[in-house]
Amino acid sequence: MSDEFHRQFLDLNLFRGVGENPVYQPPVLTDRPRAWPLDRWADAPRDLGFDDFPHYHWRGLRLLKEPATQSAYHDLLWELHPRTIIELGVYSGGSLVWFRDLTRLMGLDCQVVGIDKDLTRCQIPPSEMTDIVLHQADCAAVESLELTRAIARHPLIVIDDAHCNTINVMRWAVDHLLEEGDYFIVEDMIPYWQRYSPNLLSEYLACFRNVLTMDMLYANTCPQLYRGVFRRSVVEK
Amino acid sequence: MSDEFHRQFLDLNLFRGVGENPVYQPPVLTDRPRAWPLDRWADAPRDLGFDDFPHYHWRGLRLLKEPATQSAYHDLLWELHPRTIIELGVYSGGSLVWFRDLTRLMGLDCQVVGIDKDLTRCQIPPSEMTDIVLHQADCAAVESLELTRAIARHPLIVIDDAHCNTINVMRWAVDHLLEEGDYFIVEDMIPYWQRYSPNLLSEYLACFRNVLTMDMLYANTCPQLYRGVFRRSVVEK
Amino acid sequence: MSDEFHRQFLDLNLFRGVGENPVYQPPVLTDRPRAWPLDRWADAPRDLGFDDFPHYHWRGLRLLKEPATQSAYHDLLWELHPRTIIELGVYSGGSLVWFRDLTRLMGLDCQVVGIDKDLTRCQIPPSEMTDIVLHQADCAAVESLELTRAIARHPLIVIDDAHCNTINVMRWAVDHLLEEGDYFIVEDMIPYWQRYSPNLLSEYLACFRNVLTMDMLYANTCPQLYRGVFRRSVVEK
Amino acid sequence: MSDEFHRQFLDLNLFRGVGENPVYQPPVLTDRPRAWPLDRWADAPRDLGFDDFPHYHWRGLRLLKEPATQSAYHDLLWELHPRTIIELGVYSGGSLVWFRDLTRLMGLDCQVVGIDKDLTRCQIPPSEMTDIVLHQADCAAVESLELTRAIARHPLIVIDDAHCNTINVMRWAVDHLLEEGDYFIVEDMIPYWQRYSPNLLSEYLACFRNVLTMDMLYANTCPQLYRGVFRRSVVEK
Amino acid sequence: MSDEFHRQFLDLNLFRGVGENPVYQPPVLTDRPRAWPLDRWADAPRDLGFDDFPHYHWRGLRLLKEPATQSAYHDLLWELHPRTIIELGVYSGGSLVWFRDLTRLMGLDCQVVGIDKDLTRCQIPPSEMTDIVLHQADCAAVESLELTRAIARHPLIVIDDAHCNTINVMRWAVDHLLEEGDYFIVEDMIPYWQRYSPNLLSEYLACFRNVLTMDMLYANTCPQLYRGVFRRSVVEK
Amino acid sequence: MSDEFHRQFLDLNLFRGVGENPVYQPPVLTDRPRAWPLDRWADAPRDLGFDDFPHYHWRGLRLLKEPATQSAYHDLLWELHPRTIIELGVYSGGSLVWFRDLTRLMGLDCQVVGIDKDLTRCQIPPSEMTDIVLHQADCAAVESLELTRAIARHPLIVIDDAHCNTINVMRWAVDHLLEEGDYFIVEDMIPYWQRYSPNLLSEYLACFRNVLTMDMLYANTCPQLYRGVFRRSVVEK
Repeated sequence: MSDEFHRQFLDLNLFRGVGENPVYQPPVLTDRPRAWPLDRWADAPRDLGFDDFPHYHWRGLRLLKEPATQSAYHDLLWELHPRTIIELGVYSGGSLVWFRDLTRLMGLDCQVVGIDKDLTRCQIPPSEMTDIVLHQADCAAVESLELTRAIARHPLIVIDDAHCNTINVMRWAVDHLLEEGDYFIVEDMIPYWQRYSPNLLSEYLACFRNVLTMDMLYANTCPQLYRGVFRRSVVEK
Repeated sequence: MSDEFHRQFLDLNLFRGVGENPVYQPPVLTDRPRAWPLDRWADAPRDLGFDDFPHYHWRGLRLLKEPATQSAYHDLLWELHPRTIIELGVYSGGSLVWFRDLTRLMGLDCQVVGIDKDLTRCQIPPSEMTDIVLHQADCAAVESLELTRAIARHPLIVIDDAHCNTINVMRWAVDHLLEEGDYFIVEDMIPYWQRYSPNLLSEYLACFRNVLTMDMLYANTCPQLYRGVFRRSVVEK
Repeated sequence: MSDEFHRQFLDLNLFRGVGENPVYQPPVLTDRPRAWPLDRWADAPRDLGFDDFPHYHWRGLRLLKEPATQSAYHDLLWELHPRTIIELGVYSGGSLVWFRDLTRLMGLDCQVVGIDKDLTRCQIPPSEMTDIVLHQADCAAVESLELTRAIARHPLIVIDDAHCNTINVMRWAVDHLLEEGDYFIVEDMIPYWQRYSPNLLSEYLACFRNVLTMDMLYANTCPQLYRGVFRRSVVEK
Repeated sequence: MSDEFHRQFLDLNLFRGVGENPVYQPPVLTDRPRAWPLDRWADAPRDLGFDDFPHYHWRGLRLLKEPATQSAYHDLLWELHPRTIIELGVYSGGSLVWFRDLTRLMGLDCQVVGIDKDLTRCQIPPSEMTDIVLHQADCAAVESLELTRAIARHPLIVIDDAHCNTINVMRWAVDHLLEEGDYFIVEDMIPYWQRYSPNLLSEYLACFRNVLTMDMLYANTCPQLYRGVFRRSVVEK
Repeated sequence: MSDEFHRQFLDLNLFRGVGENPVYQPPVLTDRPRAWPLDRWADAPRDLGFDDFPHYHWRGLRLLKEPATQSAYHDLLWELHPRTIIELGVYSGGSLVWFRDLTRLMGLDCQVVGIDKDLTRCQIPPSEMTDIVLHQADCAAVESLELTRAIARHPLIVIDDAHCNTINVMRWAVDHLLEEGDYFIVEDMIPYWQRYSPNLLSEYLACFRNVLTMDMLYANTCPQLYRGVFRRSVVEK
Repeated sequence: MSDEFHRQFLDLNLFRGVGENPVYQPPVLTDRPRAWPLDRWADAPRDLGFDDFPHYHWRGLRLLKEPATQSAYHDLLWELHPRTIIELGVYSGGSLVWFRDLTRLMGLDCQVVGIDKDLTRCQIPPSEMTDIVLHQADCAAVESLELTRAIARHPLIVIDDAHCNTINVMRWAVDHLLEEGDYFIVEDMIPYWQRYSPNLLSEYLACFRNVLTMDMLYANTCPQLYRGVFRRSVVEK
């Protein structure tokens, strides 16, 4: 048996998408010419499957946010005018650059903070780090997020893209980070939890009834944010 | 803030479905009468949403295998005549009882083995344990599966329902458990991996090219087994 | 012209499915290998069309009940604890054996009765006939069902799978067989009747308004039972 | 129990659609105004469900041929220029009038023949009977169709709308009626037969391989004619 | 560069469908035999794509009204008994002949009027012009429609198939042509307007609130007439 | 009759979307609270219909390019590094600002040129006009586009969003503007043309066979660009 077979495999159950190469690779057409002749225009194959091409990118960095998600965030940034965006889960770093570019275009004074327990996959070149800060921390240990308290300005958006210990992290954010009007956003996971743990999910979210509400506008904009956009409703003294 | 809010929440990202109460609860219609009058038959609401009711059950035990999956396993058992079925991930234990009942009806001499790192959720009453064996082991540490070597008879079916360290467990099974014609089945996860880690998944499976093949028949029967039914193709000396 | 052309053909309009060979034939892949190599896993053809393979089977006997239908009946048996199941229409006999196996596993004292005007197609081997009774009778002549009165114990489930004279048979069952809480189930046909005779169907069912109700739970579980599960609501003196 | 309950019910399994009142009833909106105000135009309910209204009609006579089917027959008549159309199954008679009107508009010398075992449901007024002939005959006894031999001129179209003994009727038509280029058309039933008796259907049709072909053009035009348009290919001596 | 390249192209944005050759061409199967052998019946290709064949026709004239639209107009003619039908946009003229044939079959004394700014594409042979009148006029200049006032008898149906200046033409028709119960029908365009100019469309239609209503019956029959069938509700003095 | 009724209506057939108010209006939830309580999370209404909200915007300016279209253009800009982008059809001007922002972020020296016959609807504030140039010209008169020749630098992208005289404009661009590798993109219209003028469209495009090819990559990325991305293939002398 080959060595290749006896390697240690990453646990795909734990690290969703993360084992993938973080470097963006442009799509390549292998089974048909890219330049299609116009006298055979009507016969061109349909459904090229562009959606299945590796991933979206932003100025050369892989971006795991789909176009509809980008559009929803654009609207949220425009409405909220955040001064800090904390994203848990950095990976290639593409979305940090994208948030930074977008807020800068809007004329916002906003700092983008990326948190990951493994920052080695980040592909952001040094010249692109303006207004972006990276910190190493592990969501499995919420106390390691303590360092974010010193840098969070408001309005604040916290985004869970680490997919680790999410509900405890959300509770910690409510306790230590979020002020009234701030957002905590769970990307991607709600549909899976709703399928596999529907009762538990409802029970957990109900625990937050006094401190968060679902923002019906952004929670209905796109699949990645579906029913996962929460807003700090009131701050108890 | 209530105590309820400050409890420790299970990490929904790690334990899919497992946080749910393992006891089966029969469906209850809350918004319409169960007995619908026949002079208004044509006006009865459609799409009652039975599919969204909690889960399937087998003789009162929750069963996380959908009807189409049960049908596919029935056919596989009928064809293979297994003498051991090892299921990684026990939860309520419903599917262990279901496998036992089915093989017994078929007149097979088959033992059903359930492996889990937490057996406390198992709901099988003692009177129903004939031909069923439970072992505590953690897939994250493949060496803890060592105990299965002593009890595996062939033909053998190994099913990953623990969703933990799957590919390494599969490699360990190839090395230590599977003989030619035995099966290793990955339930549920293939579509997610194919979406989030397509390149890595293809690369990992290719490592098994000399020892496993995909069984095209069962790998196409139902969503839960989709493209995840592998057969030990040859045993190298 | 060949003799083959001048044979007498069965009337396909009358005997739905019945002309088919009642012996189960396992599926065979003709256009691709069953063992697919894992280094080409991602290229494996999808949509193998397993659903189009001849029919489902139960321990080698053809079974015309789809998996979702089996799941619905499982739940009904578990809730009702029937002591008699009468199925009109036997064909290969697979579902009689399936009902018998299931009720026995549930520990029920239940007799399964198959009624058909032609019992020669039944494939149940003698050794499998425990708790199964076959009777020849023709639904076109409801009086020939008289013999069932002596053997019906309650709770009782009567299933129309003969697709002959159904509504008159249902009326006869209300008059002579069903007690409060018993079930009369019409498989398969409701969608066709609703398409081709919607007014007549509504009018006919309304005639039963004092004696049957539709059970909204089971009438919404699966296509084969869709809107065709009726429960004896009250017994007039 | 009411008398209504103890009436004799028609066997819906045998007479598809025929139990319905053959008189056309125009649709009536019961749950909303027919005249919708234009300052609330955008709020008008969609999906009124017109398709579920009783049936189509032709100049006040119910017509069981859907619009797409009418369009397909129009094209066939225009290409074939038939001199006789025999429809087995008359019901309200609407399609006989429709065939007569259409062939007359096309300037064809064509006689339309309706065959049914029960002509009492026919709603054609005497003043509309020009070029239409009705005969009583029962497809269950193919010899009763003998009378059609004297009146069939060619090109000829025979349509099975009686849904009774169809394949034997088709064989009889091949033996006694059809000349090269004539058509035998099976309406509505092919999809059901293909679902419930796929092997038998293929076997039966193969018996006709020397005398009929499927016309790929018309057999693909609409659901009611799907794969059921056959053309007499050659006449053996 | 070829002369062909330097020709003047019709503006496809303006003349929808009109640049197409108005002469009907029957469909031709190029990639498979039209006569399919019956011993290979089950293997015949599905989805022949008949719907994509050029267009529908009526007795050899191209007809841009789909079958479902024809069925809806049949019902409207039968209910309204119009004495004049004015269609704006003539093209091949097929639908004028179709309207004439249908009203004549219904025994109506009805004149069909076709209006177009370019009548040269009309394919109606002189022998088929009975009860059909053609006029040249341009909807862009509503005053050129003045000539229709002398010939409109009531009940009247005006149909916009010119797709030019529609709302102003509708206003002109309300002012000068329509009496109570008459119809103005907008074919094809409503779904596009609703997508690209939803606010403007609602605002425009609301201007007609005192003079037109939407007929909910016909406005829901088919895609081409969807939400575009308006009825003169009352005539102000 | 009100004055409102007697106003002049814009011809919706000609100006798609253009009659709409060009000012962006943020969405407002009218029928439910925006802040949804988390103890009723599972009962929150789905399908809020955000997609039907007026339009997308870019920093407060309406943007008629959908998110998937924005993503496709991002990739094209990143690959091509254009120095001029000419968009025919300006409307609110949102997409001009969006192109300018995107190319500036990419560090490109690119000028964005907007052409419209009516520039009064443009909503770009003066402070946002850097690198954006507006010109008045009418695509119906291709010679009025002459002024673009002086400002076009290469690589060049020309986009038809005016939906007027498109094919002649494309021919003019080939003759006078495009160099090898430049793009001419037709937004939105291809599906309509393919439905209503399929033969003419194929014939027209074939005339460009020596000068343009379809870029199979971008022509398959999104509905708005579907099969409408053409690349100047070679420049004849």
